Amino acid sequence: MNVLVWNENRHEKENKVVSDIYPEGIHGAIAGFLGEDHENVKTATLDEEEHGLTDEVLAETDVLIWWGHKAHEDVKDEIAEKVKQRVLEGMGLVVLHSAHFSKVFKKLMGTTCDLKWREADEKERLWVVDPTHPITEGVGEYIELEKEEMYGEHFDIPTPEELIFLSWFEGGEVFRSGATFRRGRGKVFYFRPGHETYPTYHNKEIQNVIKNGVKWVNNTNTPKHVYGNAQPLEEISTK
Amino acid sequence: MNVLVWNENRHEKENKVVSDIYPEGIHGAIAGFLGEDHENVKTATLDEEEHGLTDEVLAETDVLIWWGHKAHEDVKDEIAEKVKQRVLEGMGLVVLHSAHFSKVFKKLMGTTCDLKWREADEKERLWVVDPTHPITEGVGEYIELEKEEMYGEHFDIPTPEELIFLSWFEGGEVFRSGATFRRGRGKVFYFRPGHETYPTYHNKEIQNVIKNGVKWVNNTNTPKHVYGNAQPLEEISTK
Amino acid sequence: MNVLVWNENRHEKENKVVSDIYPEGIHGAIAGFLGEDHENVKTATLDEEEHGLTDEVLAETDVLIWWGHKAHEDVKDEIAEKVKQRVLEGMGLVVLHSAHFSKVFKKLMGTTCDLKWREADEKERLWVVDPTHPITEGVGEYIELEKEEMYGEHFDIPTPEELIFLSWFEGGEVFRSGATFRRGRGKVFYFRPGHETYPTYHNKEIQNVIKNGVKWVNNTNTPKHVYGNAQPLEEISTK
Amino acid sequence: MNVLVWNENRHEKENKVVSDIYPEGIHGAIAGFLGEDHENVKTATLDEEEHGLTDEVLAETDVLIWWGHKAHEDVKDEIAEKVKQRVLEGMGLVVLHSAHFSKVFKKLMGTTCDLKWREADEKERLWVVDPTHPITEGVGEYIELEKEEMYGEHFDIPTPEELIFLSWFEGGEVFRSGATFRRGRGKVFYFRPGHETYPTYHNKEIQNVIKNGVKWVNNTNTPKHVYGNAQPLEEISTK
Repeated sequence: MNVLVWNENRHEKENKVVSDIYPEGIHGAIAGFLGEDHENVKTATLDEEEHGLTDEVLAETDVLIWWGHKAHEDVKDEIAEKVKQRVLEGMGLVVLHSAHFSKVFKKLMGTTCDLKWREADEKERLWVVDPTHPITEGVGEYIELEKEEMYGEHFDIPTPEELIFLSWFEGGEVFRSGATFRRGRGKVFYFRPGHETYPTYHNKEIQNVIKNGVKWVNNTNTPKHVYGNAQPLEEISTK
Repeated sequence: MNVLVWNENRHEKENKVVSDIYPEGIHGAIAGFLGEDHENVKTATLDEEEHGLTDEVLAETDVLIWWGHKAHEDVKDEIAEKVKQRVLEGMGLVVLHSAHFSKVFKKLMGTTCDLKWREADEKERLWVVDPTHPITEGVGEYIELEKEEMYGEHFDIPTPEELIFLSWFEGGEVFRSGATFRRGRGKVFYFRPGHETYPTYHNKEIQNVIKNGVKWVNNTNTPKHVYGNAQPLEEISTK
Repeated sequence: MNVLVWNENRHEKENKVVSDIYPEGIHGAIAGFLGEDHENVKTATLDEEEHGLTDEVLAETDVLIWWGHKAHEDVKDEIAEKVKQRVLEGMGLVVLHSAHFSKVFKKLMGTTCDLKWREADEKERLWVVDPTHPITEGVGEYIELEKEEMYGEHFDIPTPEELIFLSWFEGGEVFRSGATFRRGRGKVFYFRPGHETYPTYHNKEIQNVIKNGVKWVNNTNTPKHVYGNAQPLEEISTK
Repeated sequence: MNVLVWNENRHEKENKVVSDIYPEGIHGAIAGFLGEDHENVKTATLDEEEHGLTDEVLAETDVLIWWGHKAHEDVKDEIAEKVKQRVLEGMGLVVLHSAHFSKVFKKLMGTTCDLKWREADEKERLWVVDPTHPITEGVGEYIELEKEEMYGEHFDIPTPEELIFLSWFEGGEVFRSGATFRRGRGKVFYFRPGHETYPTYHNKEIQNVIKNGVKWVNNTNTPKHVYGNAQPLEEISTK
């Protein structure tokens, strides 16, 4: 399985708080722990040529992880469109935290993907509501994060096909923080935590969920349908 | 309730078979039977200025019905985008037949919306699979259409939130032919039948389903959420 | 529409706190506000003959509301089974609060319907997560209840077909507190609030949701399917 | 993974047509091909003591496959209940063909599970409608069975959480023939084909789907929730 971790990688260059937490960048941290399970984990960032997402790179990627926040608009439309097409063809996609507002996710959802938010160092508790789902393997009843950014409902997404985590926030809000979607032959997992000024991606429980998500979105040789004009499979008597 | 029936209205101008079946256009036929239930039913067509979909018209429309086929590309991107935005704000949308490939529907779905198709004068039988849904009010176990175009799976849409009709086709295919989706505050109903060379929209059973669909997609004063930065509703002790 | 409000009506007889809040019983309070919208609202209680649920009563009931808590086991199996059958035939069902553990609801769900709970006079905030749903008509972004019993995840129900409200609790839990299910021709709405020692059913916002729920679960002449051995509708050539 | 194939095993004893097709019984045939992938595949049948489903056997079973047809009523209620409880605890369940009417499946669904049926040696074509689902691994666009019993809509089940296959039948019906459900910690896969007088379980494509189903329903160490009275995780200030 070829995994590619994509990161905007701007906060890391501009904010010492962030680069202190993630000296290798958020992409480096994520690629680091995914490397424990997978041989082929690469990274790509916004400021690389074609954002590091050439046709060749996309064609050989099985699972793409996306983190972006302040520079969604700097992602070229045609590249966002190519990524979307690869998802429809079967590439798995894990969308993290503020990537809810990425061009790729919004194109796949068809909605604004807007939400409430607040940076107030508050506690988040992610409750498992689907205890059958492989993405919850090894998780307890909930995951607690001492300090995170708040994301609150209403989260303007289509009804998730599977709702896995619900978050409680100290300030009074709730959020559908782990959700899956199917688009074409591709599977999408949105997972909320991961504001850049907190060490969330160093948390072993969060790493476990992302690892599970990578396995779950990976397509396993499911059918490729043929579209367009089709000959009848049975005789049409009424003709 | 203000209902607007939008039609491409090109086949009617170019093909006598179609104009013989629909002398007032497909939009005229649909507006005709909807007028039996609703006072304010208007029509708009592709070749009108701004496709008949000015900001004023869209702002006062509660439910929009969309039929298009051969000229999807002639719909301006900015107008398709405006229609999508109005759906997200709460305007109901009924998408008929070949409008599966309309810009508006594809933007809302996030997928290719592709399918198999065949014009072979074959029989379609639409089975009700959700006998709780108000869209099936007054319907029997199934609706039979003597001759229709075939649409076959795989239909490349997100998993419908409600699956209401499944079609059987004489040539050997099946199709999810009545399905609903939620996007933002708006409800969407896709209903398959209605190829332009058949008198499908004169069929009373089909008219009944479209009438039910119009009622169902109409938004009834549901909440308008506020997005963006939010003050806490509870004291945050960890700060 | 014939509405029947069923109540266990035991706390009201045994606990002055409850009878002070609900001098006409919880059933009386609910029938009272439903009577503002509907002409035919009746009540029935556990200690009546056949629990007030004779075949005649059930046959003429379009929507049944169920409240029970401490005496679920006193409901006779055959009557719970009859109620379930009427739901499958098309009777709407609104299940309130502790009726999550009623025989009727457990039979319809197929799961334990278990949950976490706590009586601690804590705040509940019900967030709307489906702003398209008619059950949210007239509701704001959320409903706040100053004091309620806590119900927390995991709520052991099948995945709801529609998830409408999510609750935040002061003590750190979340709950899927407004959810719908379809069973046979019948629609079911579960709505969490309503512990007997709080005046929740006197709250206008809660009354509004229950009124919306009653309208929504009411079946509107949808198809009655025929089951069993069936003659072919098409010629079978392979025979 | 411990797999148990349960079969009624009555047709095999009474009908030479069936025993000629399945000399080892339907259970033997299924256990045979599952044995290609799994080391621990056992069988159990109705006429064994406790139907071969003792507490010990159930406790160590990870995935149970169920085939029954004419003797559903001979399955003891308490054993059906035990099987249901094990599913809620996390045991995977694959329900085949006429087991739609088994006590276990009906208890888990909460509906009649009724349907239309016909034995007329007709063609069935199972179309894949979810090309992301692992259960479709290695499947083409559809699977064709030359002769099968017909099952037609309406299939009286709760809305499936995932709809994977839709069947077309020569006689004019359609059917939701591959569907999944979650109950408690357990996953359930219903798969339609397999009438006893046809060699369906010798078909490699059908075997592949059942193998995929077994893998998919197997629980992989997901959370075990605690239910009942719960201490607050946060301070309750309003008390």
